Amino acid sequence: MSFPLAPGARIGILGGGQLGRMLAMAAARLGFDATILTPERDAPASRVAARTILADYDEPAALDELATTCDVVTFEFENVPAAAVGRLTARGVAVAPGERALEISQDRIEEKSFANAVGIPTVAFSAVERLGDIEAALATLGTPVLLKTRRGGYDGKGQVWVRRPSEAKTAFSELGERPAIAEAPADFRRELAIIGARGRDGEIALYPLTESHHENGILRRTTTPARDAAKAWPEAERIAVSLLTSLDYVGVMGIELFERDDGRLLLNEFAPRVHNTGHWTLDGCEVDQFEQHIRAICGWPLGPARAVRGVEMINLLGDEIHAWPRYAAEPETRLWFYGKAEARPGRKMGHVNRMMRAQT
Amino acid sequence: MSFPLAPGARIGILGGGQLGRMLAMAAARLGFDATILTPERDAPASRVAARTILADYDEPAALDELATTCDVVTFEFENVPAAAVGRLTARGVAVAPGERALEISQDRIEEKSFANAVGIPTVAFSAVERLGDIEAALATLGTPVLLKTRRGGYDGKGQVWVRRPSEAKTAFSELGERPAIAEAPADFRRELAIIGARGRDGEIALYPLTESHHENGILRRTTTPARDAAKAWPEAERIAVSLLTSLDYVGVMGIELFERDDGRLLLNEFAPRVHNTGHWTLDGCEVDQFEQHIRAICGWPLGPARAVRGVEMINLLGDEIHAWPRYAAEPETRLWFYGKAEARPGRKMGHVNRMMRAQT
Repeated sequence: MSFPLAPGARIGILGGGQLGRMLAMAAARLGFDATILTPERDAPASRVAARTILADYDEPAALDELATTCDVVTFEFENVPAAAVGRLTARGVAVAPGERALEISQDRIEEKSFANAVGIPTVAFSAVERLGDIEAALATLGTPVLLKTRRGGYDGKGQVWVRRPSEAKTAFSELGERPAIAEAPADFRRELAIIGARGRDGEIALYPLTESHHENGILRRTTTPARDAAKAWPEAERIAVSLLTSLDYVGVMGIELFERDDGRLLLNEFAPRVHNTGHWTLDGCEVDQFEQHIRAICGWPLGPARAVRGVEMINLLGDEIHAWPRYAAEPETRLWFYGKAEARPGRKMGHVNRMMRAQT
Repeated sequence: MSFPLAPGARIGILGGGQLGRMLAMAAARLGFDATILTPERDAPASRVAARTILADYDEPAALDELATTCDVVTFEFENVPAAAVGRLTARGVAVAPGERALEISQDRIEEKSFANAVGIPTVAFSAVERLGDIEAALATLGTPVLLKTRRGGYDGKGQVWVRRPSEAKTAFSELGERPAIAEAPADFRRELAIIGARGRDGEIALYPLTESHHENGILRRTTTPARDAAKAWPEAERIAVSLLTSLDYVGVMGIELFERDDGRLLLNEFAPRVHNTGHWTLDGCEVDQFEQHIRAICGWPLGPARAVRGVEMINLLGDEIHAWPRYAAEPETRLWFYGKAEARPGRKMGHVNRMMRAQT
């Protein structure tokens, strides 16, 4: 496949959720057809895509079909089986971001070890294979430690605090005794996020720093630009550029940071995909993270990533979607709804972007 | 059907072109599913819509299917058979804008007569049924006259100038001797356009005046806001409000005006749909014409229609789409490509919006 891809080319997307939905719409604006691979019927992304292949992510025939009909393949979530990406790559398909970023991001130990190796600080951590490792971690890292499964888990699922050795057994069994990571507390005063993009030619574009607010491990809202962003910017930029270049990354990456009382930044985690903390870009920037990702993976020049206005992004979880009439009546609010039928508790049903002020 | 429609409702769209495509994307952002009725396989709109019914516009079974599966139906072009809309309406479907606006806009004589009746000036005109009517028109209106088919015709097709009585026969035969209209020349110094929207509750939102530039009857580019817009605004506003209210209109309407040397405005024509002269709103406004139309027909409050920046919109016709790498590399330019496979001469393949300056 030769880049840049011309309008009319076909982009395969592994995953059919809201991120795939917004990617498919961005692709369409640029004249590309999206093909969604998802096991879910009537998935949010399928309803705005030219085509859907309804299958599990590891079904060989489905992957081969994607390989033969698409010019480039990407994914909207990082728990895609690495073997699926491997099969596509082996078939000669350009998959972006690549297998390496995906594999590293799927394993919390790999992720932090990689970060540390390229000079990016994280909390102290240690690997947990068996119960005894938790007690050792408590001794090394201090108490409490946050125990998380090494793989899987999102929106605060798959993690539990361990305050003393006597809690280790219950905690481990809560995680199904799966391989885990024990993390020292981050002791952060706030959470920041930065959306970075890297093109096929190595060009990098970074969006302004976002302040993110979680509740029970789920992102509730972001505000951009972050307060006192200028102070944190140089280190945030260094971290983002370091991650993007050391992974020879192509596409958009969501990077979550802890800011400690002394202003020091630690990498929390990165997602090799468009990210909820970047939804504000849909209405705050000239080129949003979804178009930026499509531009990057198709070998186009990146677009401007500056903020043209400040934005408060609010996630609508579960029943909160029923407040749509209020948001629809606010002149300063833009709505992004995902078309999910069932408003289960905690489920991301949509988000709104509230314009804060002009910045130009 | 009770309005406002909640996210999750289904919107039927008659027509599968680029206007339907951008309507479907706007609908999706607000959580609606779009169903496209089009006789064209792989139509631009179908590729971003939840569902397509592949059939002719007057196929009863297809219309009935649309009626039973959609909560509201709209159209993306004004040459939809009025009988199709009639059948949907008879089935109890809310069709917006309604039959009346559609019928009037389909017939140039009806359109101008209606405008004049509600106090909106147009060029002088007379109906042409037979050859003798053209000679009579030349005597009454002066020479030359512009002969246009009463119905059908777009992008400058179906019209011919008649400079003297001896040209009448050839001109009439060029139009296939179909019922026609003879129009006095507009003698305009420039063409203006205004996009208006009216909600189900009668609320009206008007976008700023646009200056439009045609070549061979095809829109090439627009600039917004129009130069000296303030002078023309009061009369443009009066015309738009008058059209929208007198038709008890629901949805977005594209209104094309002639501005004469003395500053007087004449109605050229109106389109009961989103309009090419409103494409600048996609990047120049908080709520673009497509979302505004969806808001209106779904009974939502209208969104703000003010310009947040100046925009030059450029249509890419036929081969001009191949210049995409140049536009993709311009930081100030946003791309809207329609996903049409064949770049036939004069065919609208996409458009770009060039940001001119901040206005807030």
